[in-house]
Amino acid sequence: MSDDPQVSTPAAGTRLDPWHGSYAARTRGMRASEIRALFSVANRPEVVSLAGGMPNIAGLPMDRIAEETQRLLAERGAVALQYGSGQGEPGLREQITEVMALEGMNAHPDDVVVTTGSQQALDLVARIFLDPGDVVVAEAPSYVGALGVFRAYEADVVHTPMDADGLVPDALDATLTRLAAEGRRAKFLYTVPNFHNPAGVTLSAERRPRIVEIARRHGVLILEDNPYGLLGFDSDPLPALASLAPEGVVYLGSFSKTFAPGYRVGWALAPHAVRDRLVLASESSILCPSMMSQLSIATYLSTSDWRGQIKSYRQMYAERRDAMVAALAEHLPDCTWTTPDGGFYTWLRLPDGLDAREMLPRAVTALVAYVPGTAFYADGSGADHMRLSYCYPTPERITEGVRRLAGVVSAEQELVTMFGTSDARGGRTLDAPGPEQP
Amino acid sequence: MSDDPQVSTPAAGTRLDPWHGSYAARTRGMRASEIRALFSVANRPEVVSLAGGMPNIAGLPMDRIAEETQRLLAERGAVALQYGSGQGEPGLREQITEVMALEGMNAHPDDVVVTTGSQQALDLVARIFLDPGDVVVAEAPSYVGALGVFRAYEADVVHTPMDADGLVPDALDATLTRLAAEGRRAKFLYTVPNFHNPAGVTLSAERRPRIVEIARRHGVLILEDNPYGLLGFDSDPLPALASLAPEGVVYLGSFSKTFAPGYRVGWALAPHAVRDRLVLASESSILCPSMMSQLSIATYLSTSDWRGQIKSYRQMYAERRDAMVAALAEHLPDCTWTTPDGGFYTWLRLPDGLDAREMLPRAVTALVAYVPGTAFYADGSGADHMRLSYCYPTPERITEGVRRLAGVVSAEQELVTMFGTSDARGGRTLDAPGPEQP
Repeated sequence: MSDDPQVSTPAAGTRLDPWHGSYAARTRGMRASEIRALFSVANRPEVVSLAGGMPNIAGLPMDRIAEETQRLLAERGAVALQYGSGQGEPGLREQITEVMALEGMNAHPDDVVVTTGSQQALDLVARIFLDPGDVVVAEAPSYVGALGVFRAYEADVVHTPMDADGLVPDALDATLTRLAAEGRRAKFLYTVPNFHNPAGVTLSAERRPRIVEIARRHGVLILEDNPYGLLGFDSDPLPALASLAPEGVVYLGSFSKTFAPGYRVGWALAPHAVRDRLVLASESSILCPSMMSQLSIATYLSTSDWRGQIKSYRQMYAERRDAMVAALAEHLPDCTWTTPDGGFYTWLRLPDGLDAREMLPRAVTALVAYVPGTAFYADGSGADHMRLSYCYPTPERITEGVRRLAGVVSAEQELVTMFGTSDARGGRTLDAPGPEQP
Repeated sequence: MSDDPQVSTPAAGTRLDPWHGSYAARTRGMRASEIRALFSVANRPEVVSLAGGMPNIAGLPMDRIAEETQRLLAERGAVALQYGSGQGEPGLREQITEVMALEGMNAHPDDVVVTTGSQQALDLVARIFLDPGDVVVAEAPSYVGALGVFRAYEADVVHTPMDADGLVPDALDATLTRLAAEGRRAKFLYTVPNFHNPAGVTLSAERRPRIVEIARRHGVLILEDNPYGLLGFDSDPLPALASLAPEGVVYLGSFSKTFAPGYRVGWALAPHAVRDRLVLASESSILCPSMMSQLSIATYLSTSDWRGQIKSYRQMYAERRDAMVAALAEHLPDCTWTTPDGGFYTWLRLPDGLDAREMLPRAVTALVAYVPGTAFYADGSGADHMRLSYCYPTPERITEGVRRLAGVVSAEQELVTMFGTSDARGGRTLDAPGPEQP
């Protein structure tokens, strides 16, 4: 029930598995979430979950959507319930270009591939580009679901630092230069430029042309993952990297956060020849995306005030961000955190000596949940951080969750003071970026 | 607009592709259909297409489905439009076990993984088992969409012959023995036991325990792909291979042919440890299947007479099979073909010297389309065969299509008589199985 599938322990049960000797090498990179069992507890209603990435869709005009869906099926059911094309419905692809225009992209529907959520687009991009041992450069920290995909394709992730303005251009340049000097092949830069998951920061407008220029100079494709770009609280959307370099970027978009995730509709916008291969890979993977889902989204976009809905989402999430930040300031003065201008997450640094992963079971016992920072690094660092999401709980619950978290942190600090700890592992972090490692 | 995504020419446009040097090795196995351009012509209404695998869903009670879907969204919209679990909705998995019980399987919902069509299940099984160079044993001929998946994972397909009773047990035993002697690793046997696509034959009840025994003796998993099993025309469903050896079979099912393909809902039933890995692979690939699609299917199963609908599908397809077979007998006496007891397809052998692939453009000019047999072999053989589908056109159109096809065949035979031909390439076929090759 979240957007965070994999974290890190081997799949259970292999010892009892008659086929344990038959699996492909890539399955060694497929790992179950170490916190999955814990989260099945954390899903109990008495726990305040600041862990998940579930959007709050309670505000959708459900009765209208139900009526429009009835009309769609009654009038065009034989099309909606049939197979469609591998690339996706032309009408929806046209509408998707209108959505992307809000972030400065002047895209052609021919270059759009509709996917089963943008996660499938991520998987397809990895599938067509990554050989085992290839390098993906990704922010430190990076989206856990993307790290899982890269691991499943046996790629090495090399992190590159961010600060409050997102990716640090000089550091990226240095990372790519070093990789080239080592003869290692960076296939692409994976980046979430807006309202980063988990870091909560946004790549500044000034840096965008520089990032594009650096990637171009190094001959590295940019994989721009942008599920939250239209969910900025205070200002207009920034131009997508894809708007600055259409031939150098594969752009991933999604309706999961701006409308609803239950249809599983996302998309990729790609340079034409890359698009060809994405379509082939998608046909091999699923034949075609759901026509019913696609026509439902198309109907929503053409019959509802979707821009108004996004505006109301922005207001709701802004209130929750405010509740989160106010509660952190009140209850966790020894921590530091990012203050996001949009999206779902803040990235919190614990006081020295505390380990977010070690602390999680005690937090769940205290009826609050979060995601430890280690989930967002390919190399096990990040234990001094956690991701806190404010998208799903009400402001009151957020405040209560932070209050409970503060109790856990405070008890943990007492333990550290009394006994010391060696659990907290340092890592490259937003506020203290270190050298990149594979 | 069909279930047959890939046949065989390299993706176009790579010469103009700035990223052409960046693709993964596996993309060499991803090929666009050589007949795709032709089929965009063949989709014109004046062409009788005996090519596609689109089910005819015109008989569905669309108004009722529309009403039930409206109720679903109005009453449970906040669940239907939200993320779900990676494995799929527990309620739907329970219902799926009831569907599988019709073919003798006594499955537990815990061992079911819901997928984006059974094509995704096929992709996930390949993903967790196939390393480059591994062998998949498959019928000769075999489903084109599966061959595409195996190619995308850089596996070698070794065909093993069928006759009118499906897979030939002794030949399978010999194939597996030979592979073992050569030190080649067969990861699984891929089989479509019921109403085979494209061959139209069914594995007899007597042979089923033997096939299971042979696979077990060789330590080879069976991948049982069964989209058509409930669409038999004359008799009750045969027991699934999975019912005979639950620990030795990964079973794939689908609602695309028994209900409708537009939701993209299929499933895998797998031994428990394999199921664990399928879920991890699916989460990495799409996070979770569409809740809206899953709850729509669950609603259909619980509010409609789905067994009655399947019965009416069977009657409709049986009439179309009759029309196909009668037209073939009348118009193509020099050909031979299989007479399917269910499903969508017959497999036709051309008179000596004719090449179905060479002939296709002339057939499309004569306003009839089919799929050349070469699509269903990994090694380029099969040119003397074609797949004819009777699922989508009306009986009258089927008759007219076969009449047109007969004109094309007859003209082709005259050319062969006058000039001879070297185009027709022999191949291992149902009626003349030859030695297996990689």
